[in-house]
Amino acid sequence: MPLQQSDFTVDRLGPGEFDSPMRNVPFIRDDRRVLYAAEAAEVCAEIEAGRKPLAFEIAGPRERLFFKPGTVRAGLVTCGGLCPGLNDVIRAVVLSLEHHYQAEVIYGFRYGYEGLIDDYGHEPWLLDSEEVDHIEDAGGTILGSSRGPQDVGRMVDRLEQLGINMLFVIGGDGTLRGGRDMAAEIHRRGSNIAVIGLPKTIDNDIGFIQMSFGFQTAVAEAGQAIAAAHVEAKGARNGIGLVKLMGRHSGFIAAHAALAGSQVNFCLVPECPFTLESFLGTLQARLERRGHAVIVVAEGAGQDLMEANLGRDASGNVKLGDIGLFLRDEIKAHFGRVKMPVGLKYIDPSYMIRGVPANAFDSAFCLLLGHNAVHAAMSGRTNVVVGFWRNEFTHVPIPLATSARKQIVPDSRLWSSVLASTGQPREMV
Amino acid sequence: MPLQQSDFTVDRLGPGEFDSPMRNVPFIRDDRRVLYAAEAAEVCAEIEAGRKPLAFEIAGPRERLFFKPGTVRAGLVTCGGLCPGLNDVIRAVVLSLEHHYQAEVIYGFRYGYEGLIDDYGHEPWLLDSEEVDHIEDAGGTILGSSRGPQDVGRMVDRLEQLGINMLFVIGGDGTLRGGRDMAAEIHRRGSNIAVIGLPKTIDNDIGFIQMSFGFQTAVAEAGQAIAAAHVEAKGARNGIGLVKLMGRHSGFIAAHAALAGSQVNFCLVPECPFTLESFLGTLQARLERRGHAVIVVAEGAGQDLMEANLGRDASGNVKLGDIGLFLRDEIKAHFGRVKMPVGLKYIDPSYMIRGVPANAFDSAFCLLLGHNAVHAAMSGRTNVVVGFWRNEFTHVPIPLATSARKQIVPDSRLWSSVLASTGQPREMV
Amino acid sequence: MPLQQSDFTVDRLGPGEFDSPMRNVPFIRDDRRVLYAAEAAEVCAEIEAGRKPLAFEIAGPRERLFFKPGTVRAGLVTCGGLCPGLNDVIRAVVLSLEHHYQAEVIYGFRYGYEGLIDDYGHEPWLLDSEEVDHIEDAGGTILGSSRGPQDVGRMVDRLEQLGINMLFVIGGDGTLRGGRDMAAEIHRRGSNIAVIGLPKTIDNDIGFIQMSFGFQTAVAEAGQAIAAAHVEAKGARNGIGLVKLMGRHSGFIAAHAALAGSQVNFCLVPECPFTLESFLGTLQARLERRGHAVIVVAEGAGQDLMEANLGRDASGNVKLGDIGLFLRDEIKAHFGRVKMPVGLKYIDPSYMIRGVPANAFDSAFCLLLGHNAVHAAMSGRTNVVVGFWRNEFTHVPIPLATSARKQIVPDSRLWSSVLASTGQPREMV
Amino acid sequence: MPLQQSDFTVDRLGPGEFDSPMRNVPFIRDDRRVLYAAEAAEVCAEIEAGRKPLAFEIAGPRERLFFKPGTVRAGLVTCGGLCPGLNDVIRAVVLSLEHHYQAEVIYGFRYGYEGLIDDYGHEPWLLDSEEVDHIEDAGGTILGSSRGPQDVGRMVDRLEQLGINMLFVIGGDGTLRGGRDMAAEIHRRGSNIAVIGLPKTIDNDIGFIQMSFGFQTAVAEAGQAIAAAHVEAKGARNGIGLVKLMGRHSGFIAAHAALAGSQVNFCLVPECPFTLESFLGTLQARLERRGHAVIVVAEGAGQDLMEANLGRDASGNVKLGDIGLFLRDEIKAHFGRVKMPVGLKYIDPSYMIRGVPANAFDSAFCLLLGHNAVHAAMSGRTNVVVGFWRNEFTHVPIPLATSARKQIVPDSRLWSSVLASTGQPREMV
Repeated sequence: MPLQQSDFTVDRLGPGEFDSPMRNVPFIRDDRRVLYAAEAAEVCAEIEAGRKPLAFEIAGPRERLFFKPGTVRAGLVTCGGLCPGLNDVIRAVVLSLEHHYQAEVIYGFRYGYEGLIDDYGHEPWLLDSEEVDHIEDAGGTILGSSRGPQDVGRMVDRLEQLGINMLFVIGGDGTLRGGRDMAAEIHRRGSNIAVIGLPKTIDNDIGFIQMSFGFQTAVAEAGQAIAAAHVEAKGARNGIGLVKLMGRHSGFIAAHAALAGSQVNFCLVPECPFTLESFLGTLQARLERRGHAVIVVAEGAGQDLMEANLGRDASGNVKLGDIGLFLRDEIKAHFGRVKMPVGLKYIDPSYMIRGVPANAFDSAFCLLLGHNAVHAAMSGRTNVVVGFWRNEFTHVPIPLATSARKQIVPDSRLWSSVLASTGQPREMV
Repeated sequence: MPLQQSDFTVDRLGPGEFDSPMRNVPFIRDDRRVLYAAEAAEVCAEIEAGRKPLAFEIAGPRERLFFKPGTVRAGLVTCGGLCPGLNDVIRAVVLSLEHHYQAEVIYGFRYGYEGLIDDYGHEPWLLDSEEVDHIEDAGGTILGSSRGPQDVGRMVDRLEQLGINMLFVIGGDGTLRGGRDMAAEIHRRGSNIAVIGLPKTIDNDIGFIQMSFGFQTAVAEAGQAIAAAHVEAKGARNGIGLVKLMGRHSGFIAAHAALAGSQVNFCLVPECPFTLESFLGTLQARLERRGHAVIVVAEGAGQDLMEANLGRDASGNVKLGDIGLFLRDEIKAHFGRVKMPVGLKYIDPSYMIRGVPANAFDSAFCLLLGHNAVHAAMSGRTNVVVGFWRNEFTHVPIPLATSARKQIVPDSRLWSSVLASTGQPREMV
Repeated sequence: MPLQQSDFTVDRLGPGEFDSPMRNVPFIRDDRRVLYAAEAAEVCAEIEAGRKPLAFEIAGPRERLFFKPGTVRAGLVTCGGLCPGLNDVIRAVVLSLEHHYQAEVIYGFRYGYEGLIDDYGHEPWLLDSEEVDHIEDAGGTILGSSRGPQDVGRMVDRLEQLGINMLFVIGGDGTLRGGRDMAAEIHRRGSNIAVIGLPKTIDNDIGFIQMSFGFQTAVAEAGQAIAAAHVEAKGARNGIGLVKLMGRHSGFIAAHAALAGSQVNFCLVPECPFTLESFLGTLQARLERRGHAVIVVAEGAGQDLMEANLGRDASGNVKLGDIGLFLRDEIKAHFGRVKMPVGLKYIDPSYMIRGVPANAFDSAFCLLLGHNAVHAAMSGRTNVVVGFWRNEFTHVPIPLATSARKQIVPDSRLWSSVLASTGQPREMV
Repeated sequence: MPLQQSDFTVDRLGPGEFDSPMRNVPFIRDDRRVLYAAEAAEVCAEIEAGRKPLAFEIAGPRERLFFKPGTVRAGLVTCGGLCPGLNDVIRAVVLSLEHHYQAEVIYGFRYGYEGLIDDYGHEPWLLDSEEVDHIEDAGGTILGSSRGPQDVGRMVDRLEQLGINMLFVIGGDGTLRGGRDMAAEIHRRGSNIAVIGLPKTIDNDIGFIQMSFGFQTAVAEAGQAIAAAHVEAKGARNGIGLVKLMGRHSGFIAAHAALAGSQVNFCLVPECPFTLESFLGTLQARLERRGHAVIVVAEGAGQDLMEANLGRDASGNVKLGDIGLFLRDEIKAHFGRVKMPVGLKYIDPSYMIRGVPANAFDSAFCLLLGHNAVHAAMSGRTNVVVGFWRNEFTHVPIPLATSARKQIVPDSRLWSSVLASTGQPREMV
């Protein structure tokens, strides 16, 4: 079904009733929108057909607020795997709540959604500007995290017990769905609690959001692993460096790392299926020609090759077979069969990427993301995630953001550039 | 005068007559455009008023080429101050010429426009994929650079003598104007030489181009200087760390560095005038309250305070008074007068920023920029610079790109975010 | 058997017959020695007992040379696993041969000792100052490497065929033994070929050599993995970060990384046996008390726990069971049994450490090591490895260097400091 | 006057009366000594002449303590310019006091010796393991610093008022002299306060101490500036990169940075005088031959060329003329006179080096230094600085350490290696 403008409409708890305490600020009017499509022809066609072109609400501080400044009781929670920039986001949210809106109290829930369930015994942490001073210098999340959903009713109970007005949920797909369900339950109860998502996906795969925080840091760190793989590949006769990178369903990290580092010869992503025969044959040809090869594989690539049905993890994500180890073994077996001695070195830098602090770009990006999340909440938006589209911060309804995963389009300029950079064939089937 | 769509029209040497040798590539149709405006209301208003909305031609490989593949003779030149990513761009242009279009010969001109003038005796360097292998690992430009214009007629003579079809000019404002003048002279002579610009401005201040290469690397490196300034400021009673950053007319590096690093308390940029009295008073108040301060000043800030008229440098840029040394002395004098002992440490990291290799983001960006420049030239575009707008690479006529400098808008969300991050007052006058 | 001074005596092909071409250089006299023991009482006791105290010959340029400058034909070979600084050493040897002694030809043998055996078809690479320009910017070895010995007679044949006077062997224990055997074979044949070792051991475990190149870089890089492990450990309830580091028989990298990073709570090394029961109990107590733990384990630790007999690798080293994966599984099993949910993250940064370029310290160290190796060869030393002892570069007979592995002494100040830093008990048995 | 063993004798407040609370630790016996001389001939000659060879007391934990564990009241102060590792040292001292000896109270005095004088109003900071958690992640000193001496009597008064038993003084030459004077005053008063120095000199120039903390980090950071200078030098016709580094009287940072980075062509240090004529002529020859040059100059080099008599700074150090700016101007003037266009870029990275956190090597070194300082104090040593000699931590009497500055010996292997690496002539006079 084609997208409707109604899909872009953001839920609000109610109209703005209080004046913003911010001074000398260029407030954003509620009717400002950034176009979904960037191409002139597409937008013109929509308009000529009498439709309003699809567009996102632009994020930013509002002149009139739903919540009364000085009375706000906020909560923050970080869920799922680590991603560079989590502490930057926490800090930005806390500072904006305190400095811009004089929040009364800010709870940091510990260890993901577990922190919203009494039984786990994780006491929430009272946050203020002192507590978040310099936390961005370290990777990870000061709040801790956990995977998986918790009972929605009990989480909303907890928010109500603590008198919380707004909950900031920092997490990925599954976490945002949890936020959506909480928003629905809150609505059902007639409560006034805003639920604002901050899109955490190191894979950069959340729909309708052009870039998520930590992605650029991850690409940069992946470069360290690729450089090491290249050094090892060059250091041995028929050396092969094999690097497994993040990317369960979308290969953006692998693709951008291949563009950033000129040493990658094969970039394997979930979006572009390949057969072992074709891949191994192409690899062998490359070795015969050049004497070494560097392969980057996203963790979700080639899942069909493994015939694995491994269930789901605590977050409900489909468990993946380990394509890195699988390829390592298949490559060794192949070159054993053809009696061509190779030296394969396998690198899995996963946690060394997830655990680094955000780089300068991501730090600035997280700051703005966090501020905009607080502005959204204060204005009464709910069931919304703060996005980024064509250089503007946006309000994206959580149902829209979770309706479709963002993936590499094999026919796109991005993927063509990757192929141009690696020199691998477009098809390995 | 308001912009016209004609301002966005790109010059072409002629229509495409040859088939592209690229295979399995998503070619870009010539009529694809990315909208200049992103906001829905603005675009709708234009259309409803019966005008076509302003839009840039989208860059990328064309199916039909003006130049015959295999016969191309290309030249590259790098001009002006160093900027991270120059070698990445050189490498990308050379590899695309060689791999995508089988160029016959590629000349690298040495030391900027000097390399196009016989008298200097700089022999051009024959470039190929071997010569550019791994050059991106080092900062700077393998071709060398120089500042300032050279005689346009003699430069075109040189291109004609060497039988060159396309010249890639990597440089800033003044350099691009040189390219524009060469394109005009070439047109006057009826020659078929494409002149393609690649926008090099560490200040990120070229008009109609959202981001230029090396900018993000510069922001990240600036962070090192700011961190050191912060350490020094905290290490002394009433410690003041003062960092001068690049930014002759546009303070983007200073602004983004202030967003990326939470330690900046004052960010002074050319776009936002201030008086010494107000600034020093605010600084004193900060010291009395917090005991230390970090100040970041763009080199073009506060020029009116210095009453200097220092002429122009070899590139024709107005020479600036040194605001860093000026502020250093004024701050010391002020606190001497008020008998408040301070410990001021001044840091000018300029060359340490300009000389670093591109980071991962800029490396990938430079690769795509270089490829798109070659595609533009092969298709017969000329007098055009490759830009980036709302996530798409674009063709920007050089006259448009050099018609207006990009600057921080004091009333923008960006600047408001900087103020929110530093805590400095919006006005210091 | 106690050490004798004769164990420290260096083999020489013959006396110096030619004047050194080096000018204005403080030549080292042949009788200069650095004491083996540093403690006053020990040295005094030896002397008072009428013995000369044990001492190493000091390395450095000699005034009189065995080989005639300008006529030297040299070979270099790098063997075994990668280690930061290999390219620095290659470069230093080549530059010293060329600049100090005007070598006639310098062969770089490819892929370790394989390069000295015709059958492999690896043509030697002619090296000079141009070829080694900037090679130190990349990790690994430009010559490539391989593991394992080759036929000594055939290798010496090859040296003789090429008219080589001196072979520089960059490698570890097994490689140096190969060098020793070549020196013996050369002696048997009455040839005049010097064999000079450069001690490559990322584990820093070669006897009678206080520090080997690449070690400090490895410790620094290990810190990145430990930092990531700490971030992951803090990010989960009862989070455990487990890092496997190099150290087959000697835990110096693990120990120094534990001293350098304050986050390590358990440092497990081959020299200090432990039982699973005791270790797991201590770990559980730590988690109950602090909620997270970081464990660093050297690859050779706890081998007795695995009862594995896995043969030897191509270099003849005993294959080790994988203590990292073993501990990972045992820890998970233990906390499963005691029903204490933990979040374990396992990091194996091996190749990401081996493949980095040398840091500043190691670069300078490699330069001096390489120069001293060339000085040793020119003076006619053979069967010797260049060492470092009490701040002086030394000549260590290869038989001495390979007679005993350097290990951590559990009763030493070093290990006590590690325990003081980690807080782990001295005994976990 | 030649050194006497009595110069190496360490002052003690009294004998050990209490048992150390440390368990399972290899205590160091009081009679253990590390030889001052490393060369066999020198030591043998001394012994044969019937003298005990000069030797330092070895540092480390003692079995019997002068101070009663659990009752200790300690103070720390950091003085002079910043140096990487200060926070590591503070942390190590605090943790050892708390964990090894259960100190009763630990005062961190603010802003150097000012913190020991009431009038400044700097309240001391109560330190414990919580306060120093992760402080080593940032550069600088959490205590702040200041330059210059204060009244010795009043400082000792303050120590007595606070009931302090031991003062840890982290600073350079002048600071240690202050410590010596305090120790003398304390002795005069018959008080029992230990004064222990920790040698802070980024220049690595304190006598009788082989290496001081932060030095290796400084050398590594200097490499960044040199790399940038090299990029700029290569990027222009006759490009000159000029880098001023620390080194008031001793050029160790410049020398080691020249060894670590292969790009340095001239290394100018205080220990090796040169004339402008010779230097400029050699530089010109280099430019004519190679087209670019990188110059590293220690701040204390060439002072005689400037005829400046600029008095002393607050720490009592002779003020130096700015050799960096002087050379910059002289070089420009020279090439103006000979009409040879050059492109000179000047880099002064001073604070960017001083402000970085310690690298892994220095972190481990600082940890051990701090522990040994506490062990020394607990055992009743006083007027002593913790040193490092031939791989052992030592007790060096402050009068000995401040009796002679450590400098580069022009006739040494170190300086010869620098000349071999840069290619500059031994004499430029």
